[in-house]
Amino acid sequence: MKIKLGVIGFGGMGKWHAQNAPRAGVEIAAVCDIKEERWSEAEEMGFKLYKSADELLADSEVNTVILTVPNHLHKEMCLKAAATGKNVITEKPAAMNVAELDEMEAACKKAGVFFTAHQNRRWDRDMLIVKKAYDEGLLGNIFTIESKLHSGNGYMHEWHLYKKYGGGMIYDWGVHLIDQALFMIPGVKIKSIYADIKNVLHEEVDDYFKIILKMENGVTFHLELSTYILEYQPRWLVAGDKGTIIVKSFGCEGALYRTGDMLKKLPPQITETVAGPTRQFAPVPPGGIVEESLPQVETDWVDFYENVQGVLDGTEESKIKISEVRRVLSVMEAAWESSKTNKAIIDFE
Amino acid sequence: MKIKLGVIGFGGMGKWHAQNAPRAGVEIAAVCDIKEERWSEAEEMGFKLYKSADELLADSEVNTVILTVPNHLHKEMCLKAAATGKNVITEKPAAMNVAELDEMEAACKKAGVFFTAHQNRRWDRDMLIVKKAYDEGLLGNIFTIESKLHSGNGYMHEWHLYKKYGGGMIYDWGVHLIDQALFMIPGVKIKSIYADIKNVLHEEVDDYFKIILKMENGVTFHLELSTYILEYQPRWLVAGDKGTIIVKSFGCEGALYRTGDMLKKLPPQITETVAGPTRQFAPVPPGGIVEESLPQVETDWVDFYENVQGVLDGTEESKIKISEVRRVLSVMEAAWESSKTNKAIIDFE
Repeated sequence: MKIKLGVIGFGGMGKWHAQNAPRAGVEIAAVCDIKEERWSEAEEMGFKLYKSADELLADSEVNTVILTVPNHLHKEMCLKAAATGKNVITEKPAAMNVAELDEMEAACKKAGVFFTAHQNRRWDRDMLIVKKAYDEGLLGNIFTIESKLHSGNGYMHEWHLYKKYGGGMIYDWGVHLIDQALFMIPGVKIKSIYADIKNVLHEEVDDYFKIILKMENGVTFHLELSTYILEYQPRWLVAGDKGTIIVKSFGCEGALYRTGDMLKKLPPQITETVAGPTRQFAPVPPGGIVEESLPQVETDWVDFYENVQGVLDGTEESKIKISEVRRVLSVMEAAWESSKTNKAIIDFE
Repeated sequence: MKIKLGVIGFGGMGKWHAQNAPRAGVEIAAVCDIKEERWSEAEEMGFKLYKSADELLADSEVNTVILTVPNHLHKEMCLKAAATGKNVITEKPAAMNVAELDEMEAACKKAGVFFTAHQNRRWDRDMLIVKKAYDEGLLGNIFTIESKLHSGNGYMHEWHLYKKYGGGMIYDWGVHLIDQALFMIPGVKIKSIYADIKNVLHEEVDDYFKIILKMENGVTFHLELSTYILEYQPRWLVAGDKGTIIVKSFGCEGALYRTGDMLKKLPPQITETVAGPTRQFAPVPPGGIVEESLPQVETDWVDFYENVQGVLDGTEESKIKISEVRRVLSVMEAAWESSKTNKAIIDFE
């Protein structure tokens, strides 16, 4: 069954799916939006336009929908779509919480339709470089994986500003950073979750978070985001007992750093600072640290829709399982709880 | 009473005090070490040499001692020195734990001698720049203060390698980073402590830590150290709702970053990444972020001994109070407990 996609919600992401899914061979059967100001653009772009989700769902040509409405509407739209026998792809976060997700999954199971979430950041090159380094043991025993997003843009936009619509950065990007971490080292239990979630510029929704996940295998994830840190720190810092990787940004500038032979022979020098000496934190002698290129990876986001097509054809397993989506939402809930109580969550799984 | 200093332990730090305390007008009355290989150097440098602490403590010319022996000996030497009526300055950490410190403080009180610890990193220029920014409100409401020390030098040296001597990086530098944090914002309660302390290259002692201190006033401290992160992150990153400060190293390169006028007018652009678009994490337009110079501070470590002299003269209060030293040791104990149990400590004070 070839995907004939109905796009529910023609805002920024709806338009993006309508324009990009065809690259994966997906046919855009129809789009819809309740906002009048978006209708002419959709029609000018040549899409069959409906003015409500109900109308789109009544179109028997549509066999699959992508939900690109604000987060608080995912559940309602998913339930409606499943009831009309459409397969459901939802934008992330799939739901406002685990309870909603369970309801959505049950509805899709009952209707016998496929259900997944568009965790598109699993195809990010920067993350896949780090995952490759992890999978191939390039850094030895890894003790910290830091995944950070800093922005100087400050304020958020549109419905992300409001709590009732599922706004805030935990929902918008926390869901990606957590998903990438758990995707990177599958099958490893989380033994502790600690979070610091703040409202820096926004009174209503979170715009800063630091989430620490201590994993059973000794890796600690440090997930951090701020809309107002003006000198951005690297997107990824990964350190092991055989080296360090820096990936600076989505553009993937960076390197793998190792200790050169010289450092093995030379003891560190003593450095004088204004308040005293230090040997441990003296500069490494020239040649003591050497740079290698980052591992190379191939990635193409069209794989997301191609995989959905494969699932519908019965030839592939879904790359984004609802059990994974559920675990990410559980971590989000634990992070909120941790930040509120100032406690760590240790009985997570 | 002019300080006539006896240096107990003529290793790296003992020699450093013997050479540097005179800059503050301190007279070096004598030095001692039990290691024969250090005797000739001390004598060649012109110091009166004793071959044991007991001999040095029997010298009535010495009125004050600095303890520059390995950490596990601080208590024993302090008790001996107090018993002979000498004022006691100990290297940091003052003691292996709070219980030891209490014993030391009680002995000094009983003997009527002055007792303090050489928390010399309170005179570090990098820290004082950040403290000035904090005190003067240069960054508005600060939400994160990150204090990091990364080194590529890997292995530690001498007795720092062994647990029984009080080795490891929490004792060596954790004590500084915690002390600096609590010194920076005095009188603010800690509401949560969470730590991740690891042995990366060293089996016996810790060589990596990340300690999060959530403070009652909304600031979160992030204290981090690694002897094996090969691309060093800034010594300080401080972010508030009016700007960000970076201080790169002990050398204090860095800047204060603010949002320029341009950013207030221009909405962020949408950036396409391999796996999707982002508006929030699109680059800031040119001119959107502007740099200012870091605040300037004057600092001179000789103030440490000058203050001790002032205390002995009855003209000054001690700048490093045992109550503060005790609080830092308590945080260290809480950090160990947190790291071991994976829980946060929330009933700290």
